[in-house]
Amino acid sequence: MNTERIHFRKVSVIGVGLIGGSLAIVLKEKGLCDTVVGVGRGTENLRTAERLGIIDTYTTDIAEGVRDSDLVFISVPVLSIAKVVKEAAPHLKKGCIVTDAGSVKGGVVAEVDPLMPEGVFFVGGHPIAGTEHSGASAAFGTLFNGRKCILTPTGDTDPGALRKVKAMWEAAGSEVVVMDPCTHDITVAAISHLPHVVAYTLVNTVADIEEMNHDVLAYSAGGFKDFTRIASSSPEMWRDICVVNKYALLEVIEDFQNRLGRIREHIEKEDLDEIQREFERAKKVRDSLKE
Amino acid sequence: MNTERIHFRKVSVIGVGLIGGSLAIVLKEKGLCDTVVGVGRGTENLRTAERLGIIDTYTTDIAEGVRDSDLVFISVPVLSIAKVVKEAAPHLKKGCIVTDAGSVKGGVVAEVDPLMPEGVFFVGGHPIAGTEHSGASAAFGTLFNGRKCILTPTGDTDPGALRKVKAMWEAAGSEVVVMDPCTHDITVAAISHLPHVVAYTLVNTVADIEEMNHDVLAYSAGGFKDFTRIASSSPEMWRDICVVNKYALLEVIEDFQNRLGRIREHIEKEDLDEIQREFERAKKVRDSLKE
Repeated sequence: MNTERIHFRKVSVIGVGLIGGSLAIVLKEKGLCDTVVGVGRGTENLRTAERLGIIDTYTTDIAEGVRDSDLVFISVPVLSIAKVVKEAAPHLKKGCIVTDAGSVKGGVVAEVDPLMPEGVFFVGGHPIAGTEHSGASAAFGTLFNGRKCILTPTGDTDPGALRKVKAMWEAAGSEVVVMDPCTHDITVAAISHLPHVVAYTLVNTVADIEEMNHDVLAYSAGGFKDFTRIASSSPEMWRDICVVNKYALLEVIEDFQNRLGRIREHIEKEDLDEIQREFERAKKVRDSLKE
Repeated sequence: MNTERIHFRKVSVIGVGLIGGSLAIVLKEKGLCDTVVGVGRGTENLRTAERLGIIDTYTTDIAEGVRDSDLVFISVPVLSIAKVVKEAAPHLKKGCIVTDAGSVKGGVVAEVDPLMPEGVFFVGGHPIAGTEHSGASAAFGTLFNGRKCILTPTGDTDPGALRKVKAMWEAAGSEVVVMDPCTHDITVAAISHLPHVVAYTLVNTVADIEEMNHDVLAYSAGGFKDFTRIASSSPEMWRDICVVNKYALLEVIEDFQNRLGRIREHIEKEDLDEIQREFERAKKVRDSLKE
């Protein structure tokens, strides 16, 4: 693959958490920039990031943080992206590229695109990577390696800026896929947002039973722990994602509810053939995924 | 803990799969028996077990397999346990102990207890262990190590037989817990059977979306794979479990459906506080589980 050679003088990372911090590490390790400025609300996390060498300097002031930057990477909760961009926009220099890591793209892209000043380019992005941990101290340079990164350009997106953002994610080891924001949102609703809602719901169902004086959690084995690991993810982040991707998510929740209702009926009727057919189909699909 | 020293001359393992095979390995490795006879329907799996040294000999004839045994361990699908016991019962010698590994206990214990001939003792059991793999070749000697094993004696259970079965599981490294069959069934419905039904349903929901020409599965990351690993479990086994533990399972499925319906409403109303409250509760419970 012939990827563009890129170099940014100054990069601003707004939100130095798992994603922002990990990209900062990549940019510095691969020599793709001269300096990384971390921008955030809490100085404690920023100080940690600086101490760990993830960023070079930091500020809690967005205007100051983005001034004179070639690249502004926004990895804050999805509900805050447009707000952050609004605050940053007047201070962006001509030629600056703005990109994000929001897990929802339709609403974000529609809100952010019109906020770009003349000569400043936005490219919507979503690296499909993460762990159940958060904060700068959870960041690591191989987080994006072998992962997919979805970019969601629109008719307004500058082709040169798209190429540079693509090259950046490829340098991080990601496989970059380009799709429209709407297709992106259905995809992640199915593969990521629905599983999170289901995992949180499952854990709470079991917690209810535990509270009715059944000592059930003590018997959880590997399966339950694997299954519910994603329920350890950040409640604030997932709350925001649920609301921002509301329409796609509600659609897949309904699909799931219908399927669950059907399997419940099969169990009620003790319809062994139907139950087995359902389970076999799922096993076949699951077995086909690469580990 | 002062556990009874046990030794069986001849042990019959009916169903030499992951569970039966792993217990056979433990019994032989720890010198708890002289010989293990594997009993099953398929000779291919039994030959594999013999070749791997998991069992000493094998037969597909239950009557022959259990003759003169001190311990008969039944690890066949739950729907088949009573059938197997009925076939074995006339050939069991006085003093023989029969125990099982069925994932459901209420129905199994009620059916099997009355089938025991005079002087033969049944102890219902359920080792909480497993992987998504099955068959003798998946068996390993440390499968039960550090896991809980639930024994479900009733008024009919011989205390001496209970002590011996308890000592056997402790020798395998398990922590043995004694509870009544009904409490057992609610516990596993919540912690194990519901998660499996949900995982199978989730994978099929995503598969439906995939079939509608959305290329979604290609974007599954670690979270989805962790979450759905249990959907690779044996469809036949889980079909049977669902039907045998029908009443407890339907109850927890309903609890889950109600909770999911509520979270869906919160998302529809964009009620950030309620969504966050739900997710935070789940995170707290999940984080409290030991890995």
